[in-house]
Amino acid sequence: MDQTDIDTFWMRYALSLAEAAALQKEVPVGALIVHEGRMISTGINLRESIKQAYAHAELLAIEEASRFLNAWRLQNCTLYVTLEPCLMCAGVIYQARMPRVVYGAKDPKGGALGSLYQLNEDARLNHRYEVVPGLLGAESSRLLSRFFQKKRVKTSLSPSDP
Amino acid sequence: MDQTDIDTFWMRYALSLAEAAALQKEVPVGALIVHEGRMISTGINLRESIKQAYAHAELLAIEEASRFLNAWRLQNCTLYVTLEPCLMCAGVIYQARMPRVVYGAKDPKGGALGSLYQLNEDARLNHRYEVVPGLLGAESSRLLSRFFQKKRVKTSLSPSDP
Repeated sequence: MDQTDIDTFWMRYALSLAEAAALQKEVPVGALIVHEGRMISTGINLRESIKQAYAHAELLAIEEASRFLNAWRLQNCTLYVTLEPCLMCAGVIYQARMPRVVYGAKDPKGGALGSLYQLNEDARLNHRYEVVPGLLGAESSRLLSRFFQKKRVKTSLSPSDP
Repeated sequence: MDQTDIDTFWMRYALSLAEAAALQKEVPVGALIVHEGRMISTGINLRESIKQAYAHAELLAIEEASRFLNAWRLQNCTLYVTLEPCLMCAGVIYQARMPRVVYGAKDPKGGALGSLYQLNEDARLNHRYEVVPGLLGAESSRLLSRFFQKKRVKTSLSPSDP
């Protein structure tokens, strides 16, 4: 398998994590971290479930990877995530000194790795990282659209729901 | 007391939290969150102690405040922090929809609320927030300089230390 096949394999796994998030009524975003060929952590968006603004898939995957490696520096790790990271997540990837990020759908409203900002390439910061954008982006977008469509239908059928 | 007196009172408290971080050999940064006049959470930088890249004072204070209020939205809250927030922290403040941040020292190398970026004023994002920069900034800078000076002295006296 070449690198693209490997990346695609892991991104499919991240997409299945995103589907698990949707089952929990969370915006479907999934993430996982691969360290030297081995998956060491996963994360799904849990903002509503645990009522924490930081509970994005990427940050939870990074937390788990640091616990596993017993280090805040995530060297030789690749983060796979189904949606372009926001400012906070691009920031924690930087803080963890991760060398590589592969993401699915672009986020024109909040993405910080290509859409609104290109934080991974800021020469003023003391760490830059490689970004592979748009891998299986269409699949991820479909998952997100379907989720928001269902939510809108439900809201219009039961307007008094909380 | 007017607003500046109130802000100064809380910033002094945040500075004492930063001193507690230094005692634990952590870069001295302290943060706290005030909700409708009441302090509901505190945080100190714990990156080395808990080996987590996200363990900045601000993020830990936000985590605790959300637990206390049982909500990821931190409405009517002010965050006090002794050092200008980085990209990750400016991002989590945005994600938590906080309306107001007061910070101490500027961070020319990594600050995202005035130094490298002005993320709180980005009109493309769906939430903006008020920032009061530089409150007791000299006190905070002194604390940070003293910490790094001691660290350098220690490093030069015992070069084989881990």
